Amino acid sequence: MPETLPIDSVGLVTPQTIHFDQPLTLQCGKVLPEYDLIYETYGELNSDASNAILICHALSGHHHAAGYHSLSDKKPGWWDSCIGPGKPIDTSRFFVVSLNNLGGCHGSTGPTSINPATNAQYGPEFPVVTVKDWVISQARLADKLGINTWAAVIGGSLGGMQALQWSIDYPERINNAVIIASTPKLTAQNIAFNEVARKAITSDPAFHDGRYFDHNTIPQKGLMLARMVGHITYLSDAAMGEKFGRDMRNKAFKFGYDVEFEVESYLNYQGERFSENFDANTYLLMTRALDYFDPAKEYDNQLENALAKALCKFMVISFSTDWRFSPERSEILVDELVKADKQVSYTEIDAPHGHDAFLIPTPRYMDVFSAFMNRVAKEI
Amino acid sequence: MPETLPIDSVGLVTPQTIHFDQPLTLQCGKVLPEYDLIYETYGELNSDASNAILICHALSGHHHAAGYHSLSDKKPGWWDSCIGPGKPIDTSRFFVVSLNNLGGCHGSTGPTSINPATNAQYGPEFPVVTVKDWVISQARLADKLGINTWAAVIGGSLGGMQALQWSIDYPERINNAVIIASTPKLTAQNIAFNEVARKAITSDPAFHDGRYFDHNTIPQKGLMLARMVGHITYLSDAAMGEKFGRDMRNKAFKFGYDVEFEVESYLNYQGERFSENFDANTYLLMTRALDYFDPAKEYDNQLENALAKALCKFMVISFSTDWRFSPERSEILVDELVKADKQVSYTEIDAPHGHDAFLIPTPRYMDVFSAFMNRVAKEI
Repeated sequence: MPETLPIDSVGLVTPQTIHFDQPLTLQCGKVLPEYDLIYETYGELNSDASNAILICHALSGHHHAAGYHSLSDKKPGWWDSCIGPGKPIDTSRFFVVSLNNLGGCHGSTGPTSINPATNAQYGPEFPVVTVKDWVISQARLADKLGINTWAAVIGGSLGGMQALQWSIDYPERINNAVIIASTPKLTAQNIAFNEVARKAITSDPAFHDGRYFDHNTIPQKGLMLARMVGHITYLSDAAMGEKFGRDMRNKAFKFGYDVEFEVESYLNYQGERFSENFDANTYLLMTRALDYFDPAKEYDNQLENALAKALCKFMVISFSTDWRFSPERSEILVDELVKADKQVSYTEIDAPHGHDAFLIPTPRYMDVFSAFMNRVAKEI
Repeated sequence: MPETLPIDSVGLVTPQTIHFDQPLTLQCGKVLPEYDLIYETYGELNSDASNAILICHALSGHHHAAGYHSLSDKKPGWWDSCIGPGKPIDTSRFFVVSLNNLGGCHGSTGPTSINPATNAQYGPEFPVVTVKDWVISQARLADKLGINTWAAVIGGSLGGMQALQWSIDYPERINNAVIIASTPKLTAQNIAFNEVARKAITSDPAFHDGRYFDHNTIPQKGLMLARMVGHITYLSDAAMGEKFGRDMRNKAFKFGYDVEFEVESYLNYQGERFSENFDANTYLLMTRALDYFDPAKEYDNQLENALAKALCKFMVISFSTDWRFSPERSEILVDELVKADKQVSYTEIDAPHGHDAFLIPTPRYMDVFSAFMNRVAKEI
């Protein structure tokens, strides 16, 4: 618990939920007859609704991006480092909207929600949702909030994919796209890691073909493994080396298969905590949304042609030690944006933290992010 | 089946087994009262036994490194690319010995062997074996074969660690060490991947605390996952991209969690095949041998001091896209060898295959490897 709320915090926040009655036809062809979206807002919407920012979350993210739900919270929202008064996404100037995506497990309609058609949990019957679907659902949320055009849509990793898709699918409704530690499509290696994660979950006997709730269990071991392998890909080799090296858990080796090194202990801890708080079906869904994302696909695999529709300005940021979505992946996007004659700023930040760097307020990252957002603010 | 045996093949080979009655005290403190080692030999030992080469295998390797066991074999031994007449390890000049290490599952005493004390399979009771232990067992094998000094000890990956340990523990019995795609110790990231693999195996309910044979089962799913995650680390991002890219399994996406991309299919296939042919307890043991390897540890963490004892010449080879044991890891070893005033040749081979490159006969790799081995042959 913070003794007092930090001066640059958005403070105490309360999530809100909107119900949508209008059916949503998804990319997979299935229809969600109705659904809820849970979201938070920070800052004040101005009179002409020109200062609205949409935050899109990554694989395990949610709507609680900044501030505290109560004074007993140990930690603020997941992107509190970048959202607040005086921070890059400055809530004294912007009205910030952060939602939990469809298919999530933090309050928006997803696999753990009740299917109105059956009065039972969706579970594995919840349809596969894609980045394109999310963007449509986010546009509907904007409609409800009276926001015609976002001053910016911003996201890291899977969140950056949503910002990119916004620029293509709703060119008139987005003035700026900030795409951080992201990629225009996954590589084979990225998909391979996702497949290992999915296989870990689905081969856990407690998964029960996704109907674990019917058996009063969860595929805890599988979800733990999925998170462990994911977690390795979020950190750089150097960052793990710096943090743990070969530090031993005990003074001498026990010569067995229990934890011997600190890095094992850390990874097990991370996996266990995550597996207690995240829905396995949602994890499958989120990894598939990553795999399927490929905006060039419906434009003859020509990303330049997909981007031709965009009208917004772009900020692309990558991190030197990010090997999950490496700087080269961002550069491909930047090159295609340039070919498509779009206005794009690009920075590769020298940071040791790997993919997780997008969550960490290193000075140069904050400086370039703030500079771009200052320009966004001036255009309001 | 090869129609005819290739002219540069060692041809048909037959493994042999030697029984050792002398107890072996292991690094963990436990004692193996007796054990078998299975091995193959290629070429002829010369009259003064000065042309003997020891091949050390990697995590999933074994004694069958070259040639064919029968004309119906689909594939030759695992390092046939480098062992044979006219190849870098030229069997017209060298007598090559290749064994399955203690703790293995291909014929040497390991977890699947019968414990003479109980008349039941060792299973999880089989003690943890280290690289140091293997080197002692290999020295005893050399004694039995009448080989006092190896012209060279050669290995890739975990095999390279054994070659390095030989140079420190038996300086008088090794004239050359060839250390390929290896490292003087694992990084935190390496250990982390191993821990995911172990956790995948041990959290499979079919593992039964390592006593799966008592239950007439094997932890097939866990072993499959372990191999899948391992396999990703053997290939470079670029090699996976080149081989699979985002190639789809079907013409259109099914929008579900079954295989959609070729890379998923490949990875599942590799994992399944492996899980049918490898013992889970041996997999745990081999990953721990990797983790524990750190010859500097008993020399105040000064690798230079460990290497000071070595008398042999060294050849160190790394591969540009190997991110499991990157060129930087080899360079650390080379730097310490130079500091310790040892004779060392080092080459980083530009190859796209990642860690697996040590198995693939790319021209420059074969050239430098052959050049070094020519010099070894001249010293016989």
